[in-house]
Amino acid sequence: MPKNVLFDRNEVLENVTDLFWRKGYNGTSMQDLVDVTGLNRSSIYNTFGDKFQLFEESLKHYQSSQNDWLRATFSKAKSPREAIVSLFRGISDDIKSGNHRGCMLASCTSELSAEQPIIKDFLVENKDRVVASFAALIEGAQQLGEIDTRKDPQTLALYLFSSLQGLRLTSMIEPDLEGVIKEVLSSL
Amino acid sequence: MPKNVLFDRNEVLENVTDLFWRKGYNGTSMQDLVDVTGLNRSSIYNTFGDKFQLFEESLKHYQSSQNDWLRATFSKAKSPREAIVSLFRGISDDIKSGNHRGCMLASCTSELSAEQPIIKDFLVENKDRVVASFAALIEGAQQLGEIDTRKDPQTLALYLFSSLQGLRLTSMIEPDLEGVIKEVLSSL
Repeated sequence: MPKNVLFDRNEVLENVTDLFWRKGYNGTSMQDLVDVTGLNRSSIYNTFGDKFQLFEESLKHYQSSQNDWLRATFSKAKSPREAIVSLFRGISDDIKSGNHRGCMLASCTSELSAEQPIIKDFLVENKDRVVASFAALIEGAQQLGEIDTRKDPQTLALYLFSSLQGLRLTSMIEPDLEGVIKEVLSSL
Repeated sequence: MPKNVLFDRNEVLENVTDLFWRKGYNGTSMQDLVDVTGLNRSSIYNTFGDKFQLFEESLKHYQSSQNDWLRATFSKAKSPREAIVSLFRGISDDIKSGNHRGCMLASCTSELSAEQPIIKDFLVENKDRVVASFAALIEGAQQLGEIDTRKDPQTLALYLFSSLQGLRLTSMIEPDLEGVIKEVLSSL
């Protein structure tokens, strides 16, 4: 069995995602990837392709773990409005516990969306998916009388998405965002 | 007179800022800087220092032009609340006119604030300054009865800052943010 398959693919991807999240795509060198994975360059190329392909896979890995977290948060909520509130409370707890790393997808938007059409497509699709989830929850909440029916679900959903991006980015330079999160939620 | 001073320093800085804004710090190579300035490497080093020093100067140049725009926008407004509204309308017009480049300081936050303490300090100071300007306008508006006095000026100001970051970032992947901007302003 060749040496280069004797590692846990998922664990490697976890470490690589963490590195790209912290340093960005352009700030990460091949040597950084070698150091963080403990693999040599040819093992990385053979397993994941080039740096760009590895970055794409990391983005999908990050998105998938975010989706898992969202699903778990939503499934515990007692109502659609409560689902949205608990998502923002989760972000608030995360920031309070000292996570000031922002969001990998938000960071990737500013770094690469203008320069890399394939990454922009991925980010637009991700945004559309998140906004559609929010809109479905808002419609459900409106049917239950939890959210004012005069609010347009699509607009409010995009507002929540944009607010989340702002919160995650601002958390990198401001640790206390509890009041801001309350203000965002007052739109519901 | 040596050849390397025969150029317009401000024009060079304008082009360099534009490049760093578009490609980020790590995505910009020395060769990119040579290409965009029309200067050779030694002229760049002699005039601006190394790439990092040039980036710092570009950030200050960007911040200063943003401040000029803010001052001009605020000075035309008839009241403190109107000043905040016109700032967001200006952003809205900018996005509608096809500017989807986001904000250089927001992009820099996600790219460098975790890795470069000196840049983080600059961004924290900038955030504090913007939040203080918003808070002063909110207090003025509250004295005139334009904004609910039960709202805490500091929290509302930080909410506006965070919302701005979110809007500028989201504009890179979503061109229609008018409804979102209305929702943000409904907090005033």
